[in-house]
Amino acid sequence: KVIWTLLVTVLGYASSLPVGDDSICTAEELAKYSIIFTGKWSQTAFPKQYPLYRPPAQWSSMLGVTHSSDYSMWKKNEYASNGVRDFAEKGEAWLLMKEIEEAGEKIQSVHGIFSAPAISSGTGQTSTELEVHSRHPLVSFVVRIVPSPDWFVGIDSLNLCEGDHWMEDVSVDLFPYDAGTDSGFTFSSPNFATIPQDTVTEITCSSPSHPANSFYYPKLKILPPIAQVRMVKLKKTQLGLAAPYLNLPAKSNEIIDSVS
Amino acid sequence: KVIWTLLVTVLGYASSLPVGDDSICTAEELAKYSIIFTGKWSQTAFPKQYPLYRPPAQWSSMLGVTHSSDYSMWKKNEYASNGVRDFAEKGEAWLLMKEIEEAGEKIQSVHGIFSAPAISSGTGQTSTELEVHSRHPLVSFVVRIVPSPDWFVGIDSLNLCEGDHWMEDVSVDLFPYDAGTDSGFTFSSPNFATIPQDTVTEITCSSPSHPANSFYYPKLKILPPIAQVRMVKLKKTQLGLAAPYLNLPAKSNEIIDSVS
Repeated sequence: KVIWTLLVTVLGYASSLPVGDDSICTAEELAKYSIIFTGKWSQTAFPKQYPLYRPPAQWSSMLGVTHSSDYSMWKKNEYASNGVRDFAEKGEAWLLMKEIEEAGEKIQSVHGIFSAPAISSGTGQTSTELEVHSRHPLVSFVVRIVPSPDWFVGIDSLNLCEGDHWMEDVSVDLFPYDAGTDSGFTFSSPNFATIPQDTVTEITCSSPSHPANSFYYPKLKILPPIAQVRMVKLKKTQLGLAAPYLNLPAKSNEIIDSVS
Repeated sequence: KVIWTLLVTVLGYASSLPVGDDSICTAEELAKYSIIFTGKWSQTAFPKQYPLYRPPAQWSSMLGVTHSSDYSMWKKNEYASNGVRDFAEKGEAWLLMKEIEEAGEKIQSVHGIFSAPAISSGTGQTSTELEVHSRHPLVSFVVRIVPSPDWFVGIDSLNLCEGDHWMEDVSVDLFPYDAGTDSGFTFSSPNFATIPQDTVTEITCSSPSHPANSFYYPKLKILPPIAQVRMVKLKKTQLGLAAPYLNLPAKSNEIIDSVS
């Protein structure tokens, strides 16, 4: 277990999020989690072109889904759906919600949608709860970076089920992604559609390799995480509130599984 | 039932939303609803000072709660809490979520929180689902009007339980409210704290009675509804998705209760 924890931690740092697989989940059918998103987009950590006005640095609503491996909300190095494009470019959630709904209807690959309120600064927190099902144990979500051309953070198909039990407490560092649909280089670039559309790519301190890029920090090896997400399993008797967890301090990038 | 329906419709038009009472709910313990919010803030309906740029007219995330009559999120003619002030002024949900959480812990008056994604135009839609409990059958929510000084739309303590059953389909027209914490008169007024704080008041076409007010339309008798919300009961077998209802056209202001 220690090795696995370390591995996921390392993968987390490398921004390749753990990918859901088809391994059978024999845990209890339903589990509820509190999900807490913490923005770490401060002017100290990201001084270059830090947006102060109209609008200042902030985060959109979170839109997420619990699903099986038959559904994918977004994936690195693949093309973003129109719904993800609308959300990443404008924070408009409707089309993405319809895509999720259709996947739920057609191939029963979706268990539920969840959403958390927007954050009006680069460093605030937001929270909601989600429910997973043993046949739909994967979690994906997106949060738009505001302002930005089409940049977002998120998770793709994190599996909360570990064989016969649900993970108790999972934290993942988040790094910026480019949806590949708008060619703007900086937070406040004017709209400029990317034609043909590019795939979803991670933005790093050296890629795109151009000094105009808002995340281009040639002296850094890796960017600091721009956000973090934590999922904590709720007890059955707990109210439908994230209550006891909302005030816990955000932790560094580690996955803790206290079930043993 | 017809009389009651009419009464609620009339009250809805007068913008005094139905207020939750302490009548005993003997319906099934839990019920899930799809909640669909439709913005009707178009330039046609509200031409005066309609915000086109930085930012254009839009809606914040929805933040809502299901609760008993021991809790109140906001109430007309009473003072807004600090959490409601932060949300109405800045769209910042964190403090309001903490207030709700505390009410849930201290007096068990809260069943759950729900949230729906922001809408990037004045006339879009958003949706999520919520769960009510027979001891917590009331629904309240707020959505901030963006841009605005401290204006919002919402519902205060709508009771979804009707004696021994849950309502099937409820629609309510929404009109703008002033949280009483910022003295700006127009959508894009600079911040100007109201000291001492005023109570929550409805904004009408004649009140505040000043031509500079963005909603001042002296030729109108009443404002058109600036938004609408609809709640549709989900069947137990339905997935945790608002799926079959998302595409239904928004209806006019009426409350339909098809259980009989």
